[in-house]
Amino acid sequence: MHFAVFFFAFALTGTTLALDNGLMRTPPMGWLAWERYRCDIDCENDPKNCISENLFMDMADRLAEDGWKELGYVYVNIDDCWSSKQRDDQGRLQPDPKRFPGGIQKLARYLHDRGLKLGIYGDMGKLTCGGYPGTPLDKIELDAQTFADWEVDMFKYDGCYSNATEQEQGYPLMSKALNATGRPIGYSCSWPAYQGGLPPKVNYTQLGEICNLWRNYGDIQDSWDSVLNIVDWFFENQDVLTPAAGPGRWNDPDMLIIGDFGLSMEQSRSQMALWAIMAAPLFMSNDLRTISSGAQSILRNKMAISINQDALGIQGRRIVKEKSGIEVFWRPLSKNASALLFFSRRTDMPYRYTTSLSKLNYTAGSYKVFNVFTDEATSLKDSTEFVVSVNPTGVVMWYVSAPAKFNLRQFYQGGTLHGRVYDDREENAIPRVFL
Amino acid sequence: MHFAVFFFAFALTGTTLALDNGLMRTPPMGWLAWERYRCDIDCENDPKNCISENLFMDMADRLAEDGWKELGYVYVNIDDCWSSKQRDDQGRLQPDPKRFPGGIQKLARYLHDRGLKLGIYGDMGKLTCGGYPGTPLDKIELDAQTFADWEVDMFKYDGCYSNATEQEQGYPLMSKALNATGRPIGYSCSWPAYQGGLPPKVNYTQLGEICNLWRNYGDIQDSWDSVLNIVDWFFENQDVLTPAAGPGRWNDPDMLIIGDFGLSMEQSRSQMALWAIMAAPLFMSNDLRTISSGAQSILRNKMAISINQDALGIQGRRIVKEKSGIEVFWRPLSKNASALLFFSRRTDMPYRYTTSLSKLNYTAGSYKVFNVFTDEATSLKDSTEFVVSVNPTGVVMWYVSAPAKFNLRQFYQGGTLHGRVYDDREENAIPRVFL
Repeated sequence: MHFAVFFFAFALTGTTLALDNGLMRTPPMGWLAWERYRCDIDCENDPKNCISENLFMDMADRLAEDGWKELGYVYVNIDDCWSSKQRDDQGRLQPDPKRFPGGIQKLARYLHDRGLKLGIYGDMGKLTCGGYPGTPLDKIELDAQTFADWEVDMFKYDGCYSNATEQEQGYPLMSKALNATGRPIGYSCSWPAYQGGLPPKVNYTQLGEICNLWRNYGDIQDSWDSVLNIVDWFFENQDVLTPAAGPGRWNDPDMLIIGDFGLSMEQSRSQMALWAIMAAPLFMSNDLRTISSGAQSILRNKMAISINQDALGIQGRRIVKEKSGIEVFWRPLSKNASALLFFSRRTDMPYRYTTSLSKLNYTAGSYKVFNVFTDEATSLKDSTEFVVSVNPTGVVMWYVSAPAKFNLRQFYQGGTLHGRVYDDREENAIPRVFL
Repeated sequence: MHFAVFFFAFALTGTTLALDNGLMRTPPMGWLAWERYRCDIDCENDPKNCISENLFMDMADRLAEDGWKELGYVYVNIDDCWSSKQRDDQGRLQPDPKRFPGGIQKLARYLHDRGLKLGIYGDMGKLTCGGYPGTPLDKIELDAQTFADWEVDMFKYDGCYSNATEQEQGYPLMSKALNATGRPIGYSCSWPAYQGGLPPKVNYTQLGEICNLWRNYGDIQDSWDSVLNIVDWFFENQDVLTPAAGPGRWNDPDMLIIGDFGLSMEQSRSQMALWAIMAAPLFMSNDLRTISSGAQSILRNKMAISINQDALGIQGRRIVKEKSGIEVFWRPLSKNASALLFFSRRTDMPYRYTTSLSKLNYTAGSYKVFNVFTDEATSLKDSTEFVVSVNPTGVVMWYVSAPAKFNLRQFYQGGTLHGRVYDDREENAIPRVFL
């Protein structure tokens, strides 16, 4: 049923109906305060980590000076707990005067001067999740204009203390209001996360028309369990979620916690790789002032980033789930290429997984294979059996290039792979001869 | 009830009734194959990692040449899957001839030549857990003698495929048999792990008399969840377990998985610190040929090792469990010192925990405090409120020295701290004036 509904919806809307602000044709990248800094407002005792303009300027400096910006990490996003507890005498939101003495516009200019963009946060309830003034229906136009006046570049609209009816009105209304300001402002909607993330409560066609990205599911925490929980949900529901994604409209499984406290290096590579397969926004939430070189090298991996940022914008899928705990994910990419990801859920020792490209539904031919995390390159015939050794909780990620004879039609009709909406964008990835 | 039973038992046995082989007066340290290498016998396809004499010689080389030995890591322990599937024509166990062509005695001498010791593995059932020949009751004397003939230094006796009655006979019998060989062989008993780890099924007084160490609980896996699960069980049952431990007789929460795939650096420090508090055997199960410098520095931390190896051999306890997810552990040490461990179960951000030494039951005075993982030293009055910032899933570990005016009697009678058996060994840690 869902499949039929979505196929129909998709056929009607085609591929062009993303939010018409021209933004985020590839998943947005940058830095977001929440997971790492939460609602720490104790600037007296914890001046380096509290939510203040200093924190965002520090991160902006690191993004601009340490080469992150050139890799694509350009957004610096404020989350909850930035504002004063009172609106100003004209009813406008205002930042906490002690923690943001320069104001938001000055902060935005600080970022713009460095080639970066500023994101800000609001909530549809009377209060934000953290208890700061919300942006209920009657404040939407005012607050959208305030953000535009401040030269903000992105807005995350959370949903604490709002109900389904308000959300149904408010999320489209904010989209309109942001567009009406004339300033291009990327729009992140928490709406689906508050409605369970699935149809019929969630209408992904509509979301694609009004939001650039949306949080489908609960908040990430600094633990491998949390990453796995998110990954499970997104791939168990891939038949619903993958058709929703595309240039300008992205599912958001939440922040990258690489560089924080809870993930091993293997697990950090796994998050980076899985987020690349999912065409997920890449918002780091970490301390760029002290991040380890190991975590940096994962977040800076150019091939993983280029897979994430592929121009086709097709969200990848899980195509194999073995009893051994090995899973295989696949994402079609532009230039007849694709990404293949081997992931181990085991907790014992490296597992030697044997398969072949033809078993993974690649058509006959000889392929070039680049290992994303080791930079090794090889050639591989579709019929050649190969062994990949996958570490516990780790991944092996491949970029697979020409001849890329993907027989997508067969692929979508195959045994374990049915249920995927056939998307004509993908035809660009396939040599005409196969269509 | 348990408390009374144990107090009585302890009073009867006193502190001297450890297995009378003079071994392991401090927790044994070394390397053990199982967690990292399991039953990998595929030497054809995985020659560097399969269970073979080469693996153990490789690890011996690393222990001897890379400075591990000088830190105390001297055991190199074989686990399951080392033997031939058949006993020899005289009924003796024999190693797999392809994987151990030189035989066990030659391997033992290779280790002894490098100042190291060799451990080996057997099982009380007809078969080991991995399906190799076991050492049932009627083979105990023969196999003990075989191990002694091979100049083995430690023996782990597993319990797969044996029942409670056999275990009740077999574990003491093996103890006798090992002693009867005249060769000092450290004896690790898996008995309590097969009987749920708790009285009345498990008699820790008897275990202390026949074994040098024993596995109380299930196998560790390469994940933080597994470490937490073990830590939970050991500290929830600390009233039963701590009196059982002492010089020559140790609770064994299983191997260190630091340097493998599943733990972050924070979590690795936490395992090292918690194992030190528990006076646990320190058997690494990792690849010493490729281990990262970060993991090495944790495993080589001299102050953590010296806390683990403290001559009093008193197992530490959890003394505080906050709703915030902060827990505090304490272990009395020789020279009037103690170890304090602050641990965070949070998965958000560093938590600033406020307390004082007097709140942690230290008596009046000024203490010297050494931070185990940062090498910082400070002085601290018992009454001074201090803040420790504890990272998610991480620890702050202190070595606290003189004046060490621990009022242990008050400590054990205190609100949250009752239920600990008062141990007269501990009086050595306390200035006489306080007793």
